[in-house]
This record gives sequence, C-alpha cells and structure tokens, in this order.
Amino acid sequence: LSDPSCLFCKIIAHQIPCHQIYEDDTLLAFLDIGPLVPGHTLVIPKSHYPNMMLIPPDLLAEINRRLPQLISAVLAATGAAAAHVLANNGPDAQQSVLHLHYHILPRKPADSFHIPWLPGTLDRAAAPQLAARIAQNIPK
Amino acid sequence: LSDPSCLFCKIIAHQIPCHQIYEDDTLLAFLDIGPLVPGHTLVIPKSHYPNMMLIPPDLLAEINRRLPQLISAVLAATGAAAAHVLANNGPDAQQSVLHLHYHILPRKPADSFHIPWLPGTLDRAAAPQLAARIAQNIPK
Repeated sequence: LSDPSCLFCKIIAHQIPCHQIYEDDTLLAFLDIGPLVPGHTLVIPKSHYPNMMLIPPDLLAEINRRLPQLISAVLAATGAAAAHVLANNGPDAQQSVLHLHYHILPRKPADSFHIPWLPGTLDRAAAPQLAARIAQNIPK
Repeated sequence: LSDPSCLFCKIIAHQIPCHQIYEDDTLLAFLDIGPLVPGHTLVIPKSHYPNMMLIPPDLLAEINRRLPQLISAVLAATGAAAAHVLANNGPDAQQSVLHLHYHILPRKPADSFHIPWLPGTLDRAAAPQLAARIAQNIPK
C-alpha cells in the first residue's frame, strides 16, 4: 500500500534518500531532517496509512513490538536518559506528512525543547458524562 | 506486577477513583484530571512498567492493538478530527508518574495547546555517523 505523492512512500521506495537507521519488512527508521533535538528519529510503517485512527490495529501492534529497542538505541547513541514518543494524527494535530510517523525525541535536562504543560482542571460535574460519551464510541 | 507506591497502580487497584473510559485485562483508559485539552485521556497498561524502554515489547504491542479504537472514540466524543498520541518516557522527558501512560490529546484548530515546532537543520556531514551509531545499538 503506497501513495505515489507521499514523501515518506518515496523514501521507502528509495526515490528520495534518507539517513537510515533501521529497516525490516514492516517499518523504516531514519533521522528527521528538521530535528527538534539532536537524535530526532522518525519511525514509519512501510505501508501508507495516514494516522493511528486508520492503520490496521495488528500493524500498529507490530510496529510497537519493535519500538522499545529503537528508542533504547536512540538513547544509547545520544547519551539521553529519556524520550518523548509522539505521533501527530491529523493536520489539526500538527501532522505535516500524512503518513503515520512516530517522533522519537531524546531529551536532556539542558536542551531547548519543552512541551508546554499547562493543565486545566477536570470539571468533576461534567466528567462522568464525558467519560461515558467516549466509552459509548468504543465498539464492543 | 504492581508498585504499591505508584499512583496509577492505586487507580488500577481501585484504591483511588478515576473517570474510567475503558478497561480490559491489559489496559485501563480514563480522563486526565489535569487536562491540557478537553477530552485529554490517559491509557495505561495494568502492569507496572515505568516507560516504553522497559515494557516487554509484546505487551506494548497488545496495548497498541487497542489504541486505534480508543483514539477514534475520543475524537468522536469530542468532535475533534485530530489527536496527538504522546508518551513521555523518563523524568527528563516530562514524565511525572513513572508508570507508562499514553496521553491522547484531541486537537481542534481553535484550541490553546500547541507543541512548539522549531526544527533545526540536520548536520549532513555528521548525520551518517549519528545514524550508524544508533543502528549499532539495535540488537541483531
């Protein structure tokens, strides 16, 4: 499953080069050319699915079976002890290339990257209804 | 596998309440009490593993097999079309509770949350060595 207009499908097809880290039947890992932090790595399925909502669950499982070793390798190589693992799903969530990709973002105390964490307060009166509404949308 | 001092293990054990969305043998989903955006949902394995580097790959796969439907349900209930799926692994990556958890963050164009995306430029001279160094740390 490939989209000829997709940047990542072109990388998978070796039509566009990348700084490859790892490849197997299911996925490809390579350096992001616009790193937020040193060692910023992308992990993508070789099949073209836009996001985590649309990928077959079994394929998402297969990719994630490989993620722990990939994350640990990024950390070992960069000397970081921690990493964000982030998937932006959909343009409204800052996804630029519409082919599912995980960002592995190794973090060190002194780096310049930070996710703004300004928690609101859950409305306790409205929360049961919200939780129920989400639950109702999960197929049985 | 449970850590009696862990907040999330206490929630799993029903010692601390939560606004539960979904539960099965493997995972629990509930509303974050400090939401970054409306509908901010946490998904956690029932077994206590600190992060994605330390969780057994097969368990991470099982959790991810369930994620697509959970993400889609959050989107359906909130009316959002997109979501960040984020795991902070390690205190240096802004992880507060040291029990692996995914943040599902539904996003809408007008919301106030945004991940700062200030890409650097990959050093093309150093990139091959960096990619090779990461690759060398992946077990064969």
